[in-house]
Amino acid sequence: MSKLCSDLRQAIVSAGLRDGMTVSFHHHLRNGDYVLNMVLQEAAQLGIRDLTVNASSLFDCHQPLIDHIRNGVVTGLITDYVSAGIGRAISGGILKKPVTFLTHGTRPSNILNGNHHIDIAFLAAPTSDCEGNCSGKYGPSACGSLGYAFADAQRADRVVIISDNLVEYPLPDPSITEDLVDFVVKVEAIGNPAGIVSGTTQMPKDPIALKIADYAAQAIHASGLVKDGFSFQTGAGGASLAVADHIKRIMLRENIHGSYALGGITGYMVDMLESGCFQAIQDVQCFDLEAVRSIRENPKHIEITAAQYASPTARSTAASHLDVVVLGATQIDTDFNINVHTDSNNLIMGGSGGHTDVAAEAKLTVIVAPLSRARMSIVVDRVFTVSTPGSDVDLLVTQYGIAVNPRRPELKAALESARLPVADIQALQRLAVSLNGPAKPFQPPKDHVVAQVFGRNNQVQDLIYGI
Amino acid sequence: MSKLCSDLRQAIVSAGLRDGMTVSFHHHLRNGDYVLNMVLQEAAQLGIRDLTVNASSLFDCHQPLIDHIRNGVVTGLITDYVSAGIGRAISGGILKKPVTFLTHGTRPSNILNGNHHIDIAFLAAPTSDCEGNCSGKYGPSACGSLGYAFADAQRADRVVIISDNLVEYPLPDPSITEDLVDFVVKVEAIGNPAGIVSGTTQMPKDPIALKIADYAAQAIHASGLVKDGFSFQTGAGGASLAVADHIKRIMLRENIHGSYALGGITGYMVDMLESGCFQAIQDVQCFDLEAVRSIRENPKHIEITAAQYASPTARSTAASHLDVVVLGATQIDTDFNINVHTDSNNLIMGGSGGHTDVAAEAKLTVIVAPLSRARMSIVVDRVFTVSTPGSDVDLLVTQYGIAVNPRRPELKAALESARLPVADIQALQRLAVSLNGPAKPFQPPKDHVVAQVFGRNNQVQDLIYGI
Repeated sequence: MSKLCSDLRQAIVSAGLRDGMTVSFHHHLRNGDYVLNMVLQEAAQLGIRDLTVNASSLFDCHQPLIDHIRNGVVTGLITDYVSAGIGRAISGGILKKPVTFLTHGTRPSNILNGNHHIDIAFLAAPTSDCEGNCSGKYGPSACGSLGYAFADAQRADRVVIISDNLVEYPLPDPSITEDLVDFVVKVEAIGNPAGIVSGTTQMPKDPIALKIADYAAQAIHASGLVKDGFSFQTGAGGASLAVADHIKRIMLRENIHGSYALGGITGYMVDMLESGCFQAIQDVQCFDLEAVRSIRENPKHIEITAAQYASPTARSTAASHLDVVVLGATQIDTDFNINVHTDSNNLIMGGSGGHTDVAAEAKLTVIVAPLSRARMSIVVDRVFTVSTPGSDVDLLVTQYGIAVNPRRPELKAALESARLPVADIQALQRLAVSLNGPAKPFQPPKDHVVAQVFGRNNQVQDLIYGI
Repeated sequence: MSKLCSDLRQAIVSAGLRDGMTVSFHHHLRNGDYVLNMVLQEAAQLGIRDLTVNASSLFDCHQPLIDHIRNGVVTGLITDYVSAGIGRAISGGILKKPVTFLTHGTRPSNILNGNHHIDIAFLAAPTSDCEGNCSGKYGPSACGSLGYAFADAQRADRVVIISDNLVEYPLPDPSITEDLVDFVVKVEAIGNPAGIVSGTTQMPKDPIALKIADYAAQAIHASGLVKDGFSFQTGAGGASLAVADHIKRIMLRENIHGSYALGGITGYMVDMLESGCFQAIQDVQCFDLEAVRSIRENPKHIEITAAQYASPTARSTAASHLDVVVLGATQIDTDFNINVHTDSNNLIMGGSGGHTDVAAEAKLTVIVAPLSRARMSIVVDRVFTVSTPGSDVDLLVTQYGIAVNPRRPELKAALESARLPVADIQALQRLAVSLNGPAKPFQPPKDHVVAQVFGRNNQVQDLIYGI
């Protein structure tokens, strides 16, 4: 009658894993995750074939997946993000079926609505009791929020909790609860702490990033949105973090009491919470140890599920009240469409994550990027992949100037009033070409579809072709 | 786009209430609840008819419901408990369709599994933000846990949060979250605090109750279950509370570290937690102000959903790990079947609540009751209503002795070894008759079914006939 399995193999067998099933994983252990590899290795040894992996993201630590695909153990992938190591193999055509690319908002929506059925969810939990009440906030592999795991736990036919830190029943403050859990298994380690979260959040020193951040912060300020009740999301990348630093100074100087910070959370957002810039953090994922400490200790630092974060079919979400989001891009075209899925050779090296969701929802979506990378303009005639439609993007901020989406003339006027260096996006593109020389003409081949990119409306928004 | 409605009528109209729908309510405001009456009054004024009310419990404060039934506004009832004022009307035959009696465990099971569809859930929330992140822990009408409201929020087509305490978005520590909520409406008051929770928990002074409690505690001790890891549920009634007091002394004296207390929670259970008797409380419902304070302040006092509490279709529940539960009875028969639905005239005045669930799950189910009430034996040949089957009951403890279910000979031996006054249940029945004189023979008529009592297996377990 006990849920506690002697080892992972017993858990897999007890959960009834069979050929053709869909298994799911969350990515809160990021590039330190051991669990996806452990499960697929056992499945392979058990002779299981034809699995579909539904994983909220895939990192390079998951490269053993490539062999499982080659060997027919895994034949389908549904995910929101694929890092370059695995992405290159997918672009090379190792999968017969195209990858289904979702977003951090559409993934839980599809699971909760029953569109994407999960047979067995294998959920890494940094702390669990023997009945599966579990949390990411405690234990040697603590990752903070378990936001991306909730929908899987709520709807999978079978739920297996995999933990390296079993504690006495009942765990106080559980994120996922025992009523949803079929099996619990203790393993030596669920991940490598060094890969799970970074120790500290580093402010960039690169002068180009600092210049971009300065312009972005001024543009956000000029938009008029930084006032009492302000809500804000930014990423962990260098320029994004520097934007946050500027925004913090503005808020403290002008005595502005914001509402909440959102997103993947860094220590820098924690610092803004503790400085009184925000009354709360809504956290779907922690990026560093400071964020993990804060979500464990500070009741104003709230764990939210991926559905609460950004599901397009939820009644409302933290994203749907968002004022400003600062995001990156690998390519942006003159219609402001953003590519975060593929690189300049159209090899898969990313995915929407929450990019598409928050861009669609925020009042002001700011893209920060250097005008060129590796001597190639990031502004192009047409992005290889539409990850986020241009209609959801308001500003491109580069070190050479700020392009405003023509859909936002009042925003352009506000930036011009603030004497910010506003430029047409075509002018920025021409500048990049003049600085770098003309780009080698490269038109990706269009023979073999390796991925379908689904939009917020659950329709195919774009296709990614193999190389 | 705002969820915030100007008044309750607007919320009802926006939610699309129509003839024939099922509306749901929770009972955390107990006999102080204003919300069910408010909603039905507006529905009546809007000319809505033929509603089914799915309410986790109905109290005498809800007696306006009787008129709504008479007027055809409400034509169906699904509930776990009906207090005497409304019960008498139901037994009198005001409803054409029989009431569906569930338990606190089977109600969320049926809602979550889709067996009992809810069109609109009207959920009283002592504190909410404008998007419907809400909690029972804070505000002038604080009731503590919102355990019985979760399944409704998760599955109803429309969810309306009704609160008298709107706070800034986002509410930290929400129980029900915005992704599930369609509309929010602020009203003057959701309930009368005096009826929501009692101020303090009173230990009984009645010598019969104290005698019963003394025997019950000794029997529980003799069972061998009171040891490290012990888990315990008891009610708020006099004898139950006195049992807890004895158990506390035993645990402190013998330095026993229990696991958790469960159930509707009183200040007395909080005292046991704070005294170190238990490492946690799992709380589906707070009975008094001390419990409300504790669940707000103490992380070891855990809010659980009704499904986590006792759903028979959950993967496991707090009830399924329970060692000992102390429960009451209005009738018990010589097969140990328990009636908590009807009185000695077979008038409805109660319901299973969680009685049937925890009796089915606990290792030891102890019924405490005086041998007679109003000069009638509580031990009868055959209970009018089987609320909890005798196969799930282990002990009847009265002031004249303890009857052990013959299915538990080893338990009987343990009690005899402890020199406890063990008696056959037939002997206790004969003693009651000799003390009170023979009961007036009363065989309830069986013409008109007024309620169907469903068991844990979701099958009809018994029928209640009208008077």
